[in-house]
Amino acid sequence: MEDVKVVIDKLVEKTKEKKNPSMVGIDPEWNKIPYCYKKNALSKAEVIFMWAKDIIDCTADIVPAVKPQMGFYEVYGAEGVDVFQRLVAFAHEKDLVVIDDSKRNDIGNTAKAYAYAHLSKEGPINADFLTVSPFLGTDSIQPFLDVAQENGKGVFVLVKTSNPSSVEISQARNESGEKISDWLGGYVNKIGQNFLGESGYSFAGAVVGATFPKEADRLRELMPNNYFLVPGFGAQGGSGKDITSCFNEDGLGAVVSSSRGILYRYLEVENYDNTRKMYLDIVRKQTINMQKEIYGELKKMCTRMEY
Amino acid sequence: MEDVKVVIDKLVEKTKEKKNPSMVGIDPEWNKIPYCYKKNALSKAEVIFMWAKDIIDCTADIVPAVKPQMGFYEVYGAEGVDVFQRLVAFAHEKDLVVIDDSKRNDIGNTAKAYAYAHLSKEGPINADFLTVSPFLGTDSIQPFLDVAQENGKGVFVLVKTSNPSSVEISQARNESGEKISDWLGGYVNKIGQNFLGESGYSFAGAVVGATFPKEADRLRELMPNNYFLVPGFGAQGGSGKDITSCFNEDGLGAVVSSSRGILYRYLEVENYDNTRKMYLDIVRKQTINMQKEIYGELKKMCTRMEY
Repeated sequence: MEDVKVVIDKLVEKTKEKKNPSMVGIDPEWNKIPYCYKKNALSKAEVIFMWAKDIIDCTADIVPAVKPQMGFYEVYGAEGVDVFQRLVAFAHEKDLVVIDDSKRNDIGNTAKAYAYAHLSKEGPINADFLTVSPFLGTDSIQPFLDVAQENGKGVFVLVKTSNPSSVEISQARNESGEKISDWLGGYVNKIGQNFLGESGYSFAGAVVGATFPKEADRLRELMPNNYFLVPGFGAQGGSGKDITSCFNEDGLGAVVSSSRGILYRYLEVENYDNTRKMYLDIVRKQTINMQKEIYGELKKMCTRMEY
Repeated sequence: MEDVKVVIDKLVEKTKEKKNPSMVGIDPEWNKIPYCYKKNALSKAEVIFMWAKDIIDCTADIVPAVKPQMGFYEVYGAEGVDVFQRLVAFAHEKDLVVIDDSKRNDIGNTAKAYAYAHLSKEGPINADFLTVSPFLGTDSIQPFLDVAQENGKGVFVLVKTSNPSSVEISQARNESGEKISDWLGGYVNKIGQNFLGESGYSFAGAVVGATFPKEADRLRELMPNNYFLVPGFGAQGGSGKDITSCFNEDGLGAVVSSSRGILYRYLEVENYDNTRKMYLDIVRKQTINMQKEIYGELKKMCTRMEY
């Protein structure tokens, strides 16, 4: 038996330990990054690195995981990807689970290459989970599952996202009359059955937006032992209450992410004094508030709360 | 009036000039790269660069475009992305159109970041076209269209790919009873109407596999002035004849890509002498053969062949 936990069990364990099923989405938007990080004569990518490292540092004891979105790093090209890699390593030093939100998709050997790049222990990124887009069909998802399994890692397949247009494809019906989102839910559940962690949760999860609570209820039923990645807490709509639909009665089964509401809240703080200290105080406070709001709601709603 | 051509017009012009609507997919698979490139003590990423540069060099006078797939570079992390960027620049030096096959998808500001990274003239990659996955819906495609328009670039939206599982989502039907692939075809056609180049073709194209010729016929009808990117000539099935369904009667409207059949054909050549010279001779010969096969077929089939 290996002494290394599969990442889904680590996510569950850290969630219980910190009484927190929410995380910070580390999405650097240049124009919103505080000035205090920009005044040194560093490259943009290095500014992002210093800033993101600070965010991880000041929230690592509160959250079980972080979720950087690759697009915000890729915008600086190779240098940004280098920053992304160093941030994954830094988050691992802090014993955080890293959800790499890159929404990759392709077929055959190209899919294998992406999977290796993002999830292999020997690969350059070595994240714990990767988000994967299913448009090309199940044979395009398989290479990601294979690499995840071999490395004790996990995937979150996009099933129903929070943006309005997500209905266009996810609500279409296949030959059997099933909605694509339901069909994907059933598929994710099925592939996960043989790869459950000790926690009872599977290495395969689903991205499910909190903006469609009915849909979330339905998908929760279809996927009892799959984790949901729930993006956009606050910013994309979805309050503490809406979000409980994404959880099981044990208070587990979902990890909620907020980016803007934490990272850029300082822009709405009137007496913000332009210091790094005050900026990070606000970040920390917002992260704690999110934990309190979601954990409080779960404590009220969940009948078999496990933490 | 700007003196810089929009990329769709450049693609059409180069296709006519070279009498060739086919291109090389520059997909480095480490185990298949000839030994002659590996014997120097370079990093893997640098080996890939030297090899890919050679491929571009020895086919640049034959093809209108090249199509590198990002996954095969991302597998080397930041160093691989750096190689990708340098290859795009090198292909531009050779006056080739670069189709960046990254299949990116996301929403809002993340989609904007990806679009800027891959398509902006000021961005790190600066490719001419980018492939985009539509799973998240039309609001997720819009940021890519915006950046493409602003920069005179183009996109290819995945509509119907060549892999067997592609039917799972693309053949589902939406509320209006339309197949997702037809609906996407109509959408791509519509968005392109206001951004036609002087050639009469639009900046928005579609990825259409050649393995479903009936489907290709149907999509051709739905998208008369949109270009098709047709991947996997040879390897993924699809012969010269099948591929004519993807073209218009002017012999335009599609660009066909082959990777394995060109890059790794040497593995089947009995008397291959392990030299770089013979390797590149084989690559060149295969590229010419593809041009001859496809151009020959079009000459026979097209009633209003323009070149």
